[in-house]
Amino acid sequence: MEQISNGNADLTPAPLRKRGGGRAGSAARRGAAAILQSPWRIPLNTDRPTEPLDDAGIHAIHEAAMTVLEEIGVAFLNPEAIAILTQAGCLVEGDLVRMDRDFVTEMLAHAPPEWTITARNPAHTLPIGGNHILFGNVSSPPNYWDMSLGCKVPGTRDHCANLLRLTQYFNCIHFSGGYPVEPVDIHASIRHLDVMFDSLTLTDKVLHAYSLGAERVEDVMEMVRLAGGLSEAEFTATPHLFTNINSTSPLKHDYPMLDGWMRMARRGQGLIVSPFTLAGAMAPVTMAGAVVQSLAEGLSAIALAQYINPGVPCAFGTFTSNVDMKSGAPAFGTPEYMRATQMTGQMCRHYGLPMRASGSCAANVPDGQAMWETSNALWSAVQSGANVVYHAAGWLEGGLIASPEKFIMDCEVIQQIQRYFEPALTATTPGDLALEAMREVRQNGHFFGTQHTQDRYTTAFYQPFLSDWRNYEGWEQSGAVWTAERAHTLYLRILDDYHAPPMPDANRAALEAFVIARKEAGGAPTDY
Amino acid sequence: MEQISNGNADLTPAPLRKRGGGRAGSAARRGAAAILQSPWRIPLNTDRPTEPLDDAGIHAIHEAAMTVLEEIGVAFLNPEAIAILTQAGCLVEGDLVRMDRDFVTEMLAHAPPEWTITARNPAHTLPIGGNHILFGNVSSPPNYWDMSLGCKVPGTRDHCANLLRLTQYFNCIHFSGGYPVEPVDIHASIRHLDVMFDSLTLTDKVLHAYSLGAERVEDVMEMVRLAGGLSEAEFTATPHLFTNINSTSPLKHDYPMLDGWMRMARRGQGLIVSPFTLAGAMAPVTMAGAVVQSLAEGLSAIALAQYINPGVPCAFGTFTSNVDMKSGAPAFGTPEYMRATQMTGQMCRHYGLPMRASGSCAANVPDGQAMWETSNALWSAVQSGANVVYHAAGWLEGGLIASPEKFIMDCEVIQQIQRYFEPALTATTPGDLALEAMREVRQNGHFFGTQHTQDRYTTAFYQPFLSDWRNYEGWEQSGAVWTAERAHTLYLRILDDYHAPPMPDANRAALEAFVIARKEAGGAPTDY
Repeated sequence: MEQISNGNADLTPAPLRKRGGGRAGSAARRGAAAILQSPWRIPLNTDRPTEPLDDAGIHAIHEAAMTVLEEIGVAFLNPEAIAILTQAGCLVEGDLVRMDRDFVTEMLAHAPPEWTITARNPAHTLPIGGNHILFGNVSSPPNYWDMSLGCKVPGTRDHCANLLRLTQYFNCIHFSGGYPVEPVDIHASIRHLDVMFDSLTLTDKVLHAYSLGAERVEDVMEMVRLAGGLSEAEFTATPHLFTNINSTSPLKHDYPMLDGWMRMARRGQGLIVSPFTLAGAMAPVTMAGAVVQSLAEGLSAIALAQYINPGVPCAFGTFTSNVDMKSGAPAFGTPEYMRATQMTGQMCRHYGLPMRASGSCAANVPDGQAMWETSNALWSAVQSGANVVYHAAGWLEGGLIASPEKFIMDCEVIQQIQRYFEPALTATTPGDLALEAMREVRQNGHFFGTQHTQDRYTTAFYQPFLSDWRNYEGWEQSGAVWTAERAHTLYLRILDDYHAPPMPDANRAALEAFVIARKEAGGAPTDY
Repeated sequence: MEQISNGNADLTPAPLRKRGGGRAGSAARRGAAAILQSPWRIPLNTDRPTEPLDDAGIHAIHEAAMTVLEEIGVAFLNPEAIAILTQAGCLVEGDLVRMDRDFVTEMLAHAPPEWTITARNPAHTLPIGGNHILFGNVSSPPNYWDMSLGCKVPGTRDHCANLLRLTQYFNCIHFSGGYPVEPVDIHASIRHLDVMFDSLTLTDKVLHAYSLGAERVEDVMEMVRLAGGLSEAEFTATPHLFTNINSTSPLKHDYPMLDGWMRMARRGQGLIVSPFTLAGAMAPVTMAGAVVQSLAEGLSAIALAQYINPGVPCAFGTFTSNVDMKSGAPAFGTPEYMRATQMTGQMCRHYGLPMRASGSCAANVPDGQAMWETSNALWSAVQSGANVVYHAAGWLEGGLIASPEKFIMDCEVIQQIQRYFEPALTATTPGDLALEAMREVRQNGHFFGTQHTQDRYTTAFYQPFLSDWRNYEGWEQSGAVWTAERAHTLYLRILDDYHAPPMPDANRAALEAFVIARKEAGGAPTDY
């Protein structure tokens, strides 16, 4: 067990710890990469989505969601939101807001079907929507597990920083969601300052801000602005980060989430709402019912954002799953989860909204169960036409554990999904049809030596970095190492190989000064 | 390491060994099942297939396959087949046969798009084609691995019998392919007699006959006829078993496969041809090219069968994958494999043929890699509209190892795929939309206690038998057991729970007498 400190952290940003020394990293010095990975790319999902609902089914779910919004209503536990929705003409009684379908439809019409988030490194700017499918790291587990520990421990800043290094390292990971593990050794009042400092200096990819009270959201937006060296006008001109809020199911939005949501909306940043509608617990036991409730919760938040800032970029996130009937624990990657994700995809296309889904599992360790559950979840994201796949790498125990081994195993799967989308795999040009090669080989021998093969073999097939494709004897001779253990070894090599992305000195200095000043001012309240 | 005997086996069928005693099994005596599993069902794949080829792509692949058949030709290393194809008007030079597209098209038109195989237990009769998707056990690995051994050993009759028991036990397994592991402790001359005796008495599901010489095929057909108590007319009236042949890529069919294929064709039994076209080795390095070659090989065998017995039931099997660029070893469940499977699905629909695909992986042990590769393979079978999924449970090391732990892990995944196809998951009746339940719960509390939940909770969600959905602490308290080890424990419990299906005494006696007589006659030649 690690020793966990919950005491106050230093006021100055902690040195960025990593194996093997300084920020420049050792890969450049050594000249050898830890792994041969796929290049950065923005995958286009060219598959026709899997659509279990027919038109009548889509209509039925839409009608039911509108009925929930009109008749049952959604609670907005935030006076400012209530005032805005009253002004908008919604039927308000206390915290309860009923929206008619005309208002919702009018607001949804403002939401852009596609938008971008500009990363600190412009090469990592992300298109959200259309046929794009993007993958992010695990977000927000309070605990950490790795094979050298062999047990679950509360997350620390070091764990978090190392998972951020993996996030930056892997080209197949497009963005960082929430903290890849919650560093509970940093006091909650200043945690956002330290983790955002680490996130901004250890990665140059798109980042997320937690909607947990005014100070956190404003601090994080300011830090992203400073790290990018942006003016306020430049910052608000286009999204530079995003937030993801979860409703408090059933049918409630809480104060801090709404507060952050509205602040981000006003400054034109990316907004994702993902109701956590666990069928049989906080949502109806039927999958269609859970999707209906999820839509009512999510669309009501999007309507609010569009009323505040028409055209602000929004996306709808599905986080509908079912409980274990024995224990009540959430299950993930189940058949019901897959179908709910696919149905939500159909509804997102119906409303013209980009869609978020997840990689997820209930397994506690990075074993076979973890991988079939995560594969089910990831393939359902593909099948549903999801644009943003949260938690795609590193998630265990229903989101309560982050694991570097699982992160690396998931990246092998994600790389394969990205490779799967390359048009070359299903091309039918004369060269692909290979008649000349078959005329050459006929019934005799093999294709290894043909010019057709020689011209293509280096790029013809996906090349794994973690899968072991040797036969049993070859695998046994090299130690008979199972996948999770191989991933652990790679994890250590990748940390050694990692190097931080560059940041102009002035931006870094501004960021450091901001963190110090905000710590001196006491950080954020912790009574949320 | 186990002690392996390669000597001659007894002439009498060996007693059917299993843990815990006699044939009646202990489950009935104990009154408790080892696991709670899903019921037997014939799943309907209601998903629209994933179709990477547009019409032009389908046409291009078809044209290329026809060009191969017309211009390059396929070698039929069997004089009888050559005589038949000469008579049919094909262009024959030595072993080489060129078929024109009109002949192939005419022959394919005879092939029924759907057909059935009647099992010894009529309740296990299988519809092949249409939207049906069926799953079979692993077939033909020469080696066996389980966690108590901890190493790879040559397969034995005991291993084989235990895997047959799993095949019978799991409702999600619809048929037995080839021997689930090759029992190399039985002499090859009589191996088919002993393993078919075990298969017919340990299971009552649809079985496969190897096309490995006249005697084996004829013996196995006769044993299936005797076990079912069928007259010759009853046996040939409809398929009661099937064979699967592999071409000798590139573009060759060998003597024994063709011999068995023609014998089965004459007696109206199920015929599946699955070219093993490994892109970059025995087939072009491009996936479209490998599919073209696969089609030419497979369609030529189907044309032969249809000429011999027009209307005989055939299916086309895809076994197209790629090699590891480093080692030349076959890889499975790769992005390329998935796309080849989907493209083949489109071509099978183009030709009106039922389709076979596979569950497969390159992993050597039942770990994370095994499950993501197998998940990729199984989901590509679903996406391609495959009707028959061979090797769906128990396969490791590219088909060189059979493992009971992997078998049980795969069955958990297969059960989930079968559950995924239940229409209830995406139903949108008023009860599914759950408006009344939401009106009842509103913003307060949860859905556990509602009548809506009470009416549905026992069947609302998939219930796993192997997945552990408890939180980390619950899992840790029960021993922190990883998936493969849990599967091993279940394996032992299932063997204890297994009971053999009934067989009329007269049929059993006829079967035993046949085995004895054929052993006395020396079995089958072993020079194939």
